[in-house]
Amino acid sequence: MRFNLVTKDAASKARAGAIITDHGTIDTPIFMPVGTVATVKGVHQRELEQDINPDIILGNTYHLYLRPQTEILEKAGGLHKFMNWDRNILTDSGGYQVYSLSANRKIKEEGVKFKSHIDGSFHMFTPERVMEIQRTIGADIIMAFDECTPYPCDYNYAKRSMHMTHRWLDRCISHLEKTPVKYGYDQAFFPIVQGSTYKDLRKQSAEYIANSGAVGNAIGGLSVGEPAEEMYAMTEIVTEILPEDKPRYLMGVGTPINILENIALGVDMFDCVMPTRNGRNGTLFTQHGTINIKNKKWEDDFSPLDPDGTTWVDAAYSKAYVRHLFTVSEALGRQIGTLHNLGFYMWLVREARKHIIAGDFYTWKEKMVKQMDKRL
Amino acid sequence: MRFNLVTKDAASKARAGAIITDHGTIDTPIFMPVGTVATVKGVHQRELEQDINPDIILGNTYHLYLRPQTEILEKAGGLHKFMNWDRNILTDSGGYQVYSLSANRKIKEEGVKFKSHIDGSFHMFTPERVMEIQRTIGADIIMAFDECTPYPCDYNYAKRSMHMTHRWLDRCISHLEKTPVKYGYDQAFFPIVQGSTYKDLRKQSAEYIANSGAVGNAIGGLSVGEPAEEMYAMTEIVTEILPEDKPRYLMGVGTPINILENIALGVDMFDCVMPTRNGRNGTLFTQHGTINIKNKKWEDDFSPLDPDGTTWVDAAYSKAYVRHLFTVSEALGRQIGTLHNLGFYMWLVREARKHIIAGDFYTWKEKMVKQMDKRL
Ligand SMILES: [Zn+2]
Ligand SMILES: [Zn+2]
Repeated sequence: MRFNLVTKDAASKARAGAIITDHGTIDTPIFMPVGTVATVKGVHQRELEQDINPDIILGNTYHLYLRPQTEILEKAGGLHKFMNWDRNILTDSGGYQVYSLSANRKIKEEGVKFKSHIDGSFHMFTPERVMEIQRTIGADIIMAFDECTPYPCDYNYAKRSMHMTHRWLDRCISHLEKTPVKYGYDQAFFPIVQGSTYKDLRKQSAEYIANSGAVGNAIGGLSVGEPAEEMYAMTEIVTEILPEDKPRYLMGVGTPINILENIALGVDMFDCVMPTRNGRNGTLFTQHGTINIKNKKWEDDFSPLDPDGTTWVDAAYSKAYVRHLFTVSEALGRQIGTLHNLGFYMWLVREARKHIIAGDFYTWKEKMVKQMDKRL
Repeated sequence: MRFNLVTKDAASKARAGAIITDHGTIDTPIFMPVGTVATVKGVHQRELEQDINPDIILGNTYHLYLRPQTEILEKAGGLHKFMNWDRNILTDSGGYQVYSLSANRKIKEEGVKFKSHIDGSFHMFTPERVMEIQRTIGADIIMAFDECTPYPCDYNYAKRSMHMTHRWLDRCISHLEKTPVKYGYDQAFFPIVQGSTYKDLRKQSAEYIANSGAVGNAIGGLSVGEPAEEMYAMTEIVTEILPEDKPRYLMGVGTPINILENIALGVDMFDCVMPTRNGRNGTLFTQHGTINIKNKKWEDDFSPLDPDGTTWVDAAYSKAYVRHLFTVSEALGRQIGTLHNLGFYMWLVREARKHIIAGDFYTWKEKMVKQMDKRL
């Protein structure tokens, strides 16, 4: 994996770049649609490729490990072949999902023992095991096994957890060195900064992660319920420390506004279930604010779903029609909401990139943040 | 509406034809995908147009009347505009759905009083009211309001019901004459033959319907649980009587085999929820039999979903992948199953048409019926 820094914005820390892997080039900043269990919910791979057109999507190790299971993915020749997606894939480490199991998992120095949400069976994720699983899944970018602390988090817990995440990182790195790739193409490994919402811990963790010498770095443990201002404060501290010549990935973020603000703070990569999950619930993001398409006010509004939208669904379907589909709980409504939102997120990060390159990112960002902060 | 009879098969009663309406030409025999409530479940209008490519789809008056309601459809300028579908639409009369409400409806000479399955509110469908509703929905082909008898059905009940259906037909016709079209294009009206599984009643009803002088005729009350042989026997009696120079529509039929057998008996038009409903349940129809894609045997079968399939999903996705999607209950599995089945049904009727025109329909039909009668 290589990273070319194309442009740096003068008025902010925003950057435009390009990540080059064996599955192609990823123009940054990028948003990665979430394809949890080998599918971006309700979206055909053809639509993803031709209409949404991301350079990279994300898969969840926890979900893929449980179903279809790594054995099937290995027989298929990896996740790309299994799901017929020839562009880049990033897999998370499963850490986040495992911690979400709360009562059904136990964290120790060795790793995390957890109970499957599918059949109640017991499993153990260790840094070593998770590296092996990610080798078998075969994503282009794979993530360190970390502990994602909740918000709020006691200082001492956050500190102990951060240090364990650092020790786990060392175990991930040394085990990866012993574990060859399986499908002939390279896999880039990203470590993860933790430290909850404590500035000194975030600084310490960022330094540890920066020193690991990875080809890209991630920021975890944010967008877990903290106020946006705290998220931005943490991002700012961390991006000051993470190397400039490597991509920075802010995990699980966020709203369109969160994304623009974090781009301004030097983040290059994002993923979030928000466009897909909210799209399935009828919440549509647009340049001029958020629409709840289920509202009765759209009942006889036969204007295009989003007149400013760049995805074909925005012009092909009316607000009244999509409102009707949600009223009658039809799958097509969820499909349209998902395509609209993913299309909007991709437009947003591409437009950000254009403005970074054009040199007017900051003023554009300020205008967009104001404009999008509305309920229509 | 015009109907051109293109070819008659020598070895059977199969015909190839073309129905011409203000929304284009419908090549017959045709299968009409069911778009219950202004959407073919899980299928984008773009996919329907470009991938499935039917000349006509079906909408359900009962469902559309309840939601979005005729008032919204009228404001939209009719169903075509509301759902952005510019080809032909046929609406049923709501009769079938209303009778399915069993405990929640009361049939009288005047019409049917029923309780909405949505909110329990009471409504009344009469022949006159249903003609008005169908004028407002604005389909290209609209259906008479009839009583669809269950199977089995007492002879005396079937006889009384048939005569009421005939009286209702007269009311439909005379009310339609007083009710102008709303959107500038023509609406063809089809009466419906009833008579349960009684040959004399079917004959009597077919004669009454034939005499009504409609531009096309339908056969109702079949595919309600009777053995296939009884269905074919009834179709045969009826198509002997219905005029040859007008299209014949067999309502709610059926399996791929049912469709071929009924084409051989002189039927031109079909609709059924089977391809869409079964597709959502993981039952896939193919040239070589039926696949339950949920079976464990497909778990590591990475071959194309249907090597003989003509829809893009058949080559783009593997059996193992689609099996996985059903195992994890992902929407994409239901979307793929639906597209595959609709694509197969359309292929089947188009292929039937080609063979009718080529003159070898009967031998082809016999081969296909044998070939498709398997579980893979
Ligand atoms: Zn999120
Ligand atoms: Zn049926």
